[in-house]
Amino acid sequence: MIDGAMQSFPLTLDKFLEHAAKWHPKAEVVTGREAGAMDRIGYADMKARALQVSSVLRSLGVRRGERVATLAWNTQAHVEAWYAIMGMGAVCHTLNLRLTAAQLGDMLVQSQARVLIASADLLLLARSIAEHAPNLERILLIDGDGRGEEQGAAPIVSALEALIASARGDVLWGEFDETAPSGLCFTSGTTGAPKGVTYTHRSSFLHTLRVLQADVLALRATDSVLAVVPMFHANAWGLPFAVPAVGAKLVLPGRQTDGAHLAKLINSEAVTIGVGIATVWLGLVEHLEAHGGETPTLQRVVVGGAPLAPALMQRIEKRLGVTVQTSWGMTELSPGGTFAPPHDPARTASVSGRPAIGVDMVLTDADGEPLAEQRNVEGHLRVRGAAIVERYFGEGKSATDANGWFATGDLAKIDAGGNLTITGRAKDLIKSGGEWINPVEIESHVSALPEVSLAAVIGRTDPKWGERPILLVQTRDADEISDDQLLAPLRGKVAPWWIPDAVIRLPRMPLASTGKIDKMRLRAEYGGA
Amino acid sequence: MIDGAMQSFPLTLDKFLEHAAKWHPKAEVVTGREAGAMDRIGYADMKARALQVSSVLRSLGVRRGERVATLAWNTQAHVEAWYAIMGMGAVCHTLNLRLTAAQLGDMLVQSQARVLIASADLLLLARSIAEHAPNLERILLIDGDGRGEEQGAAPIVSALEALIASARGDVLWGEFDETAPSGLCFTSGTTGAPKGVTYTHRSSFLHTLRVLQADVLALRATDSVLAVVPMFHANAWGLPFAVPAVGAKLVLPGRQTDGAHLAKLINSEAVTIGVGIATVWLGLVEHLEAHGGETPTLQRVVVGGAPLAPALMQRIEKRLGVTVQTSWGMTELSPGGTFAPPHDPARTASVSGRPAIGVDMVLTDADGEPLAEQRNVEGHLRVRGAAIVERYFGEGKSATDANGWFATGDLAKIDAGGNLTITGRAKDLIKSGGEWINPVEIESHVSALPEVSLAAVIGRTDPKWGERPILLVQTRDADEISDDQLLAPLRGKVAPWWIPDAVIRLPRMPLASTGKIDKMRLRAEYGGA
Repeated sequence: MIDGAMQSFPLTLDKFLEHAAKWHPKAEVVTGREAGAMDRIGYADMKARALQVSSVLRSLGVRRGERVATLAWNTQAHVEAWYAIMGMGAVCHTLNLRLTAAQLGDMLVQSQARVLIASADLLLLARSIAEHAPNLERILLIDGDGRGEEQGAAPIVSALEALIASARGDVLWGEFDETAPSGLCFTSGTTGAPKGVTYTHRSSFLHTLRVLQADVLALRATDSVLAVVPMFHANAWGLPFAVPAVGAKLVLPGRQTDGAHLAKLINSEAVTIGVGIATVWLGLVEHLEAHGGETPTLQRVVVGGAPLAPALMQRIEKRLGVTVQTSWGMTELSPGGTFAPPHDPARTASVSGRPAIGVDMVLTDADGEPLAEQRNVEGHLRVRGAAIVERYFGEGKSATDANGWFATGDLAKIDAGGNLTITGRAKDLIKSGGEWINPVEIESHVSALPEVSLAAVIGRTDPKWGERPILLVQTRDADEISDDQLLAPLRGKVAPWWIPDAVIRLPRMPLASTGKIDKMRLRAEYGGA
Repeated sequence: MIDGAMQSFPLTLDKFLEHAAKWHPKAEVVTGREAGAMDRIGYADMKARALQVSSVLRSLGVRRGERVATLAWNTQAHVEAWYAIMGMGAVCHTLNLRLTAAQLGDMLVQSQARVLIASADLLLLARSIAEHAPNLERILLIDGDGRGEEQGAAPIVSALEALIASARGDVLWGEFDETAPSGLCFTSGTTGAPKGVTYTHRSSFLHTLRVLQADVLALRATDSVLAVVPMFHANAWGLPFAVPAVGAKLVLPGRQTDGAHLAKLINSEAVTIGVGIATVWLGLVEHLEAHGGETPTLQRVVVGGAPLAPALMQRIEKRLGVTVQTSWGMTELSPGGTFAPPHDPARTASVSGRPAIGVDMVLTDADGEPLAEQRNVEGHLRVRGAAIVERYFGEGKSATDANGWFATGDLAKIDAGGNLTITGRAKDLIKSGGEWINPVEIESHVSALPEVSLAAVIGRTDPKWGERPILLVQTRDADEISDDQLLAPLRGKVAPWWIPDAVIRLPRMPLASTGKIDKMRLRAEYGGA
């Protein structure tokens, strides 16, 4: 008692919308609709609606800790659903709508969700999922026109909007332990069976405070932030938390993420910061090149995931008049790992930035033993921190090693300034004649060719060497460049035995649900002898 | 178990220096010495030294939860002492060296500190304090030349540096509960007996993350931050935590904070952000005006405390070529409450900014009842949040009301955009004929006169009206302006009966330990009938 005390302040996610509603009540959440229409709402009104959604869920018997699923685009109604679910202490299980109904049904069985909030235009998919998940009792449709209701056999389908109209919105948010689970998201499964990551209120709150730093996302109340990264994967990089936390405008593209739609949104809403994978910004660039137009308010686009081709970064920066901010993260990291400081004059496409306080990293050998030298050498990347998975959903064993590190599966280098360069995926490495070949290094040289849209190198089974690299490529125009020309940039840059044995042209590179090249599929189709 | 889990990450303050040492090992802490010399050290080396200081304290028997006092200027050794004390789980009790030995001795008796880490040039004061605090066993001198050691009667006086040399630095930091106390600071007592505020690791960690936001202090690794605000009061606004947390350069002025010394430091260390009360920057302006010189790297100065005179803000901005960032806070708030966004084009001197997530505010009547209308009306300011006092040191009863709000004692308005203007101190209000007079409003009009350096209005006991306002003023040149001219700006601006009954010229306005005008003393000297 003699010590004195500071006030209690549980780190629960409802506080972000509460703060926005009280201190930035008129700041808007804007959703782009078909045919150029926009929906808009202030944070104060959004909070009132989200509380009503909580009431609807309560009336359906949803309890603390219970999973409630969503299958939806980036829209106002989806954000309201998040706060409604998390605010009342239920767990928001986001379904990645790029996966198959069977995969999603299996995830629903794991999470035992009884209620699914789904975009009306995804009702067919939702019904297919339900066939694989007998636990599903209710589908609540959002962003629809009221059609599609079905009161007969389970699952009962209702339009959420009609239920909101009679809901009181008197559910109490928060008031539970900050370590309570808030969200559940399955990994995309590009390197194995999807695994569920459970976010907690505390972990996502701390993630939010981390990304708000000036050297990370640096969001300000005067910003207008376009969140192209999907809410159905890795929390839309936490933007539905971070943007209201500072009272900025949140701009959501809805179903469409093509260049024309994004250009319209950016100019209508004076967007200053766009967040999405590089191919999204490439689409915007190609739209502007084909149809003209400018995006004068846009100052910065944040990209993440795989290493970015320097030519692509330059093209985006030049045409959009922005700086590209690179980053690296994964579902297991909530998802932000490292970020290059915004507008860093020394930025390069290959460097994914530094960790901010709350994330720590170490390079290890293949067995997880820390390398003696941690700078300017390549190693297996392991991470530790405030918003990083400790144990996957439904698993008994820890996902970390004895020292608390989580193995990312990435290969990386860290320079003297602490800047991270992802150099490859450990699972993508090719073993040829007992030696390792890193496909990312080969891909980066080939991708630099202006004729190349996307390039992937995988190992093909070889009776003599075990594996040999082959190049799969999607060019802008198939006739323009020969196989020899495609491989020419490698000569003198990589060891001669790293040069791929074959070049295979693909009219369309297969992409995984997150927009990354689907190497699992490439290996299945082209990796045999 | 089925839920999955995120990693544990206790919010303990040692992590800031750990992070800086690992990710920004060469970023520097620079201390300005007498005669223009500079001490400098990188964060990696500083961490090693701070661990050694922990070892010294451990060898003196210091245990978790025990208070260890400091009496020191802003120097590297003082920052090392903070991390050494807090890292090992002891509580850093900062003594405000502007107070009297008797006052400080009383505080030491309250905290029962056995060890005091003191600047060598404050040894005389330290010895005087010791006379009032029999619990004090040891004085460890920093920033000295090794003289002043005294091994005879208690307290034993030793030079810390000599003890560091043989210390192993193998104390384990952290690994305790994040709600453990980390610091103890007594309020300045301008409005009553000083009270101790106990900071916890969690509260100061969350305060740090709050001030790092882009709309708050927005510190970046490329910044060089001059911390003029004293470490002996309200945590130097948290800069010894926030600056290493982002890996920026921390520039400490040592004992001197005069304009010449600051100009030298700013130019030597390419300071980009300066943090200190307005009078500090006025001193810098006056130095540059008198002796010439520029501060080209300086972009922003952060000021706090009392409302700033517009003319002073303009003068600082113009001469230094910076933007002034206003803020408001108090010891009980760790200390940051509100901040104007950096470089806000709409900034005004009277507005102290907005609360960031983690601070909430309400305006009440004198009894603590929330006002029905919260915007554009004046009320008593109450606050709630993550780093705000709940109970003072050594007190049994809560410092908050039934709804968890802490009464700041300030009067304030909040505009539609959520921006706070402090309009007065409730305790400074003057009751004249049963009606309230707000001295701050009178002071702001008089302070706008270019001839006025500092102005204060207090109530003087009056047999007829109870109290009547009188004006105390420190002018730039006593002969230049008449009493009538001093009161002229009030006519037509305030009610006639608000106009002070008397003008009293002071050659030097008495300032409290924090640089604020000492109204307690003014009332004691001039407030009688």
